[in-house]
Amino acid sequence: MKLPFNPRVAVVGATGAVGRVMLEILAQRDFPASEVVAIASARSAGRELPFKGSFLTVRTLERGVFKGVDLVLLDTPDEVAAEWAPVARDEGAIVVDNSAAWRADPEVPLVVPEANPEAAFSHKGIIASPNCVTIGVVVPMAPLHRRYGLQQMIVSTYQATSGAGKGGVEELAEQSLKLVNEMEALGSGGAADIAPQPQVFVAPIAFNVLPAVGRVREGGSTGEELKLLTETSKILSIPDLQALATCVRVPTVVGHGSSVFAHFSEPVDLEEAKRLLAEASGVEMNDVPNPMAVAGTDACVVGRVRSVDFDPNALSFFTVSDNLRKGAALNTVQIAELLLS
Amino acid sequence: MKLPFNPRVAVVGATGAVGRVMLEILAQRDFPASEVVAIASARSAGRELPFKGSFLTVRTLERGVFKGVDLVLLDTPDEVAAEWAPVARDEGAIVVDNSAAWRADPEVPLVVPEANPEAAFSHKGIIASPNCVTIGVVVPMAPLHRRYGLQQMIVSTYQATSGAGKGGVEELAEQSLKLVNEMEALGSGGAADIAPQPQVFVAPIAFNVLPAVGRVREGGSTGEELKLLTETSKILSIPDLQALATCVRVPTVVGHGSSVFAHFSEPVDLEEAKRLLAEASGVEMNDVPNPMAVAGTDACVVGRVRSVDFDPNALSFFTVSDNLRKGAALNTVQIAELLLS
Repeated sequence: MKLPFNPRVAVVGATGAVGRVMLEILAQRDFPASEVVAIASARSAGRELPFKGSFLTVRTLERGVFKGVDLVLLDTPDEVAAEWAPVARDEGAIVVDNSAAWRADPEVPLVVPEANPEAAFSHKGIIASPNCVTIGVVVPMAPLHRRYGLQQMIVSTYQATSGAGKGGVEELAEQSLKLVNEMEALGSGGAADIAPQPQVFVAPIAFNVLPAVGRVREGGSTGEELKLLTETSKILSIPDLQALATCVRVPTVVGHGSSVFAHFSEPVDLEEAKRLLAEASGVEMNDVPNPMAVAGTDACVVGRVRSVDFDPNALSFFTVSDNLRKGAALNTVQIAELLLS
Repeated sequence: MKLPFNPRVAVVGATGAVGRVMLEILAQRDFPASEVVAIASARSAGRELPFKGSFLTVRTLERGVFKGVDLVLLDTPDEVAAEWAPVARDEGAIVVDNSAAWRADPEVPLVVPEANPEAAFSHKGIIASPNCVTIGVVVPMAPLHRRYGLQQMIVSTYQATSGAGKGGVEELAEQSLKLVNEMEALGSGGAADIAPQPQVFVAPIAFNVLPAVGRVREGGSTGEELKLLTETSKILSIPDLQALATCVRVPTVVGHGSSVFAHFSEPVDLEEAKRLLAEASGVEMNDVPNPMAVAGTDACVVGRVRSVDFDPNALSFFTVSDNLRKGAALNTVQIAELLLS
């Protein structure tokens, strides 16, 4: 099922960090919507959100709100998406969901347009968009996998505070303001007395690094870390993929980085691999990919591309992408664009 | 050759970030020095440095200054150490050098007291202390290597600005102060207009992450990244060690983190490995090892210890240590302590 030429679009979770960027991207890309409806929980109803020089009045997420809507872009907690995506579908919309609720469902395609656009067309009303870290790794990995056959990945991440929502950025800002004149104390172990009590993260995030993104599950990995394996395996159709991820929160605002070791079934030619990356859709090359330079842009920026001297079938690289845009809002809008008539 | 019971000690580079900590640690550990001499370049001569409730007047690094000195702790740029370590040795001192100048020399032992203390006793007047990242990885790796036989490491680092000296921390503080009220701009790509011009690092480091520590060499790795292989290989006596490092600067003050994947020659039992780590000299366990909590302390703090489901011979963990203390000053003092009569 495709979308009509000028679909009516609803953004659910419109007041959140990703929801706001969804509205921004719909406007920036001139998505051919005949109408855009902003939807959020009851306590946000009535708020006005800027859109294309005017304002959208936020409506309450409730039954009936999707009647006449063709496309729903959903960014909510998993349990909200689990409940409301089927409601939107049953009221007649195609749903593109950014939560984790539907990603593992065999009936639901999981799509990164640069990697597996064809999967979008086999949907049954719900399409899932992957986790932000997965997207940042899969976009550059897709052309390498096509050529060399991905078998194994070992990934360590550098994830921005906005990945925890607006509250994460606020916590970083508040703590940074309090600690910025305390470098001496921070360096000599005096932080315990002056660091503000964390609310969003498990310990202070300003001037710190926390190898703790998500809850630790059986086996010792967090949910965030397990997603890289299950989602990449589904998107690239590699059922026996091997993957180890270590997800780390760092004191940045926007832009998730990943340090990637990848082992393939065939030997990797470094110059060819660099050319494949440079020519790949959605990839830009930079010697020092960094979150500050990538924030607000659409590409996965890749650099530090190296051979691995002990493994001719391996490649190492560093990739950074805007976790609110390509890692979330942009990917859902790109999925919707695939479905436009 | 060992040291006399109450050696006369000189600290060269005494005014630098590590030199200051060397003086602090000599005092804290009640190192049995009969006298401590602070030495630096001519432009710092005459400055007074606090030591044990009194002050040391900085002397100029020049020929003759080491006469009568038994132990020299050296923290200077590589080229200064290359020139002056032999001078100090020839004037009668045992030199413990924290630079990279002598680490690869087959006549010079490279020592981490928790890993290869016996190597210190075969010195010919100069002993080298490893790079800060190597030390942080080797301390927890040593007991695992003894039990399982290390073959391969894949490491991504989270390195503090103090690793680039006092100027690195100052740059972080200045940029953070300027940007702390600009979260909106940082998140939406407006940083280019407001970010201060970097001096020490290749791009802004405040609220950013830079996969660029050291100059890129032939093969695409930086000098910092290559040290992990060559130094670990020498310290643990593994001539055919395989290692890949990706070194990343993060906006922290003190405390280098490393995300480590290690492959051994024998299968790893997770509970046994955790016990070996918990009982290892110089190691402390923490669920979320983080730089802010580790700054000012002596241990390598290890957490996130996991089996790797696709490789029974592998283990993954995250380790953080104070790069100025265990990663530099403390390790050199611990080496000297091995040599005390």
